[in-house]
Order: sequence, then structure tokens, then C-alpha cells
Amino acid sequence: MGATRVIETLVLSLLLLLSSSSATQRKKTRAAPRMPCKQMVFYFHDILYNGENAKNATSAIVGAPAWGNRTILAGQNHFGNVVVFDDPITLNNNLLSIPVGRAQGFYLYDRKDYFTAWLGFSFFFNSTQHRGSITFAGADPLNKTRDISVIGGTGDFFMARGIATLMTDAVEGDVYFRLQVYIKLFECW
Amino acid sequence: MGATRVIETLVLSLLLLLSSSSATQRKKTRAAPRMPCKQMVFYFHDILYNGENAKNATSAIVGAPAWGNRTILAGQNHFGNVVVFDDPITLNNNLLSIPVGRAQGFYLYDRKDYFTAWLGFSFFFNSTQHRGSITFAGADPLNKTRDISVIGGTGDFFMARGIATLMTDAVEGDVYFRLQVYIKLFECW
Amino acid sequence: MGATRVIETLVLSLLLLLSSSSATQRKKTRAAPRMPCKQMVFYFHDILYNGENAKNATSAIVGAPAWGNRTILAGQNHFGNVVVFDDPITLNNNLLSIPVGRAQGFYLYDRKDYFTAWLGFSFFFNSTQHRGSITFAGADPLNKTRDISVIGGTGDFFMARGIATLMTDAVEGDVYFRLQVYIKLFECW
Repeated sequence: MGATRVIETLVLSLLLLLSSSSATQRKKTRAAPRMPCKQMVFYFHDILYNGENAKNATSAIVGAPAWGNRTILAGQNHFGNVVVFDDPITLNNNLLSIPVGRAQGFYLYDRKDYFTAWLGFSFFFNSTQHRGSITFAGADPLNKTRDISVIGGTGDFFMARGIATLMTDAVEGDVYFRLQVYIKLFECW
Repeated sequence: MGATRVIETLVLSLLLLLSSSSATQRKKTRAAPRMPCKQMVFYFHDILYNGENAKNATSAIVGAPAWGNRTILAGQNHFGNVVVFDDPITLNNNLLSIPVGRAQGFYLYDRKDYFTAWLGFSFFFNSTQHRGSITFAGADPLNKTRDISVIGGTGDFFMARGIATLMTDAVEGDVYFRLQVYIKLFECW
Repeated sequence: MGATRVIETLVLSLLLLLSSSSATQRKKTRAAPRMPCKQMVFYFHDILYNGENAKNATSAIVGAPAWGNRTILAGQNHFGNVVVFDDPITLNNNLLSIPVGRAQGFYLYDRKDYFTAWLGFSFFFNSTQHRGSITFAGADPLNKTRDISVIGGTGDFFMARGIATLMTDAVEGDVYFRLQVYIKLFECW
């Protein structure tokens, strides 16, 4: 009798547990804590073409509003400028250290009254350490630190999802900037 | 004896339940019904720069085909025009109501024989109500209502995925349009 | 007494199972094997506007670096060229076979020293066979075969995620290319 009652309680509580867990799964609402399954820090270096640095430039203005051109970033906080880039990725903040991959894609400036950007790009790796790509997209308010989304990956980063915290690590006029990218993946396969 | 048999049945059925649930999880094939874990409706307002509205414009043509320019949308259904925008987001369809965020990114017209577009943009929020971003991408056939993908999010919308149903709520020539965006998230963390 | 001990063991092992499964779910770390839940192969055909093929062209240069223009792809491996396209999708490699959908979006060339591209586009279907869209993004190193990410979907491809293996199936000068796209979805709803 005592055993039967224990079993009944057991069955009920387990069914409760199971049903709540399966409901969670269907809706994919997850509880804290949010622990990344993979974390990495990289830097990338952008040297913008300005009419005089064709050899060193890693990026170029390819779109501009009617009031701008493709050699000098436009007024009004560069609103409307679209820049295509192929920037070296390094493990530290030294532009001259050996690249471990390439940051490739575009950014555009999208606000008239102060600096904000929108980014669509990938980190592309083809070395013994990392092989594959991580793709990012999102609004960049250009604060001290800001998050964008990791929307996909291939190879070593197959099906990756997560966020990347960007920090502008250096700026030299309109020609050079360096970003620190702290990648936190929350979906790893 | 009776108790032992009940336990056996219990163990078997629970193992069965558990194994089926873990198989589901691996393949991530989900059954109906598809219930959003979060739903929201917003409006955003796009005022395209046309050479005369520099002060009010929230967007600008930054790319055009060889037969177009950056002040007037091109012929052939604007095929090839790329527009960068920073549009106010409101809770209702009134352009003058207080913005709750900014819609930032780009759209491009991609079809010669009728209107279609492709969108890459984010909703960016920085208020007491919402803090963070939602990023969207996808083809926009410019039907009465159409779905695009929610591909990521940050902050309050960390790791968001889902769809957004767009509805063009108003159009005034080539200068102004207003979109209703009905966001349905199916992955919430 | 025996029954009680069995129950205790049962409770413990089940709790263990449940907790480990819920931990897996939170981190979403998945084990091999990686089996797609859906696989499809398509071709799409890109005919680039070159100033003389306005009628047949399915794509156009809409962005170029300062040293380029919008009729001829720029030197330095077309670095900085942005192309908007609306290309027919076919089930085989014949340009003239009946399209089953449209590939719509953009690609840009992003490297000076050899050919690489970055892609943001959707497959848009509106037939009895497929209705909905699949959205792709990522770096394209333009190797023999390469993977990009499937970042979202709508309609029949609601919430799709996965990868697409691209293979350049034909190239004719700067005017025509054909891509084979082998889509492998790993998240299907």
C-alpha cells in the first residue's frame, strides 16, 4: 500500500516533469543561465580606400547618397555610404601580426544625426586551427561595446548561432579602424 | 508483485518517452501547432530623399543601375536601386507619434517586370520598454501581406528567430511609405 | 522493502536522465551524425547587364568602387562591385527549362587579389510544388564547391536553417554564370 502510493506520486511528478520539459522544447523558451558553448576573441583591421592608398586599402566605398562620392566619406555622419571590405583577422591588436582569417562583407552608415552602422559580413577561416565561416548581421549603434547577431556558420562553425560583442579598439581618422570581436556561440553542433 | 509490475511498465514507458523526445530534439523536427513565444506589432515610416527633402528624409538611394541615378528611383520597377534607411518605429500608424525605436538597414529593388524587394535590416530599441535589436532578412514580393525571416536578436531579443508579416499600410508616391510589421518569434531564450 | 529500493534507484536514474537531457537542450550541443531533415538541388542562372543586353539581363551592377563603373565589372577581381539580381531557378542546368522560382538578392566581390564574393539572397517559390522562401547569407570563396548558410525561411520552409553547397556549373565571360545549389536543412519545423 505504501509502495503503491509512492509509485503513484512518482508517476504523477514524472509526468509533470516530462510534460513541462516537452512544452519548453516546443516553444524553445530557455531559462537562465546563458552559457556559451564556444567563445573566441579576434581583431580585424579596416583600411579604407581614400584615393591615395590603393596598395594598402582593404575596403572601398561602393555606394554613396546623391550628395556623396566614392572617395571621401559623405557628410551627415556618412549616412548612405556603403563599404565593401576584405579585412585581415588577427589574434591580437597588432595590424602586422599574421592573419588567421579574413573578415569579408559590407557595412553601411545609416543615420544622419550621429554615427550608426549596419553590418553583414563573415569571418572566413582556412587554416589548421579553424576551417569554415561565421556569418554576422545586425545594427551597430557604434557605442563603446555593442552586440550583433551570429546568424550562421559552416565547417568548424556548422550551424552556429549566437552574438558577437564589438568594441572599437582603435580609429585613425577616416582611414583605419580596428574592431575587437568577442564571439559567443549559444548553438553549437 | 503487483508493485514490481507497475514499476516495470513505468520504466519502459518512461524510457520510451525519453528516447522519442531526445530523437525529436536531435533532428529538431517540430510538430504543429506553431505557437509564437512572443508577438509584437510595430509600424515604421520611410521618407526617401528626392533632392528636395533633405531635412525630413529618413532614407536615401545609394546604389543604382547604369541607367539610374541616386535622386530618382530608376525605371523598370526601380530594379537595381539600393536604399539605406534609418526610419522611426512607432506603435501606431501615425508618423508623428513618439518613436519607440529605429528601423535601420537597407532594401533593394530586384525585379525588372514588377515590384519586388530584398531586405536586410534591424529594429533597434533603446528604451525602458525594449532594449536590444531584432534582425530581419529576406525576399519581399510586395504582395498585400508577406513574410520575411527574423534571423537573430540581441538584448531583450537575445537569439530570437521567427517570421515577420509585412503589410504596406500607406504609400505616397515615391517619397513615403509605411509598413506594418507583425513579428512572431518562435525561438525565445 | 525491495520495491522501495527499486523505486529509489528508478527516481535517481530518471532524474539523472532528465537533468542531463535538459542540460543538453540548454546548450544545444548536438552529437553526430548530422542528418539533414530536408535536401534539395536547384540551379540558378545569372545574366549580368553589360550595356547591350538590357532585355535578357537578370542582374545589374549597382555599386562600384571609385575606380569602377556600373556597366563593366571593375579591375582587381571586381573588388567592390555590388550586383543585384533576380535570376530564374531551374531543376536542371538548362537555362531554358521552366523556372520553378526566383533567386533574388545581391552579391558583392570583396577581394582585390583574387575572386571572392559575399552573398545575401533568397530563393522565392510560388508554385504548387513549393510555396515560400529560403534565405541565404555568407562568404563565397569561389572554390570548386563551397558552403554558405541558410539563415531562415518562410512558408513551406518556415524557420529553416542549414547550409547550401554551391558549385559554379558554368561561366561565360563576365555575362553569364550558372550555380548549382545543394540545400541541406538541419532544422525543419
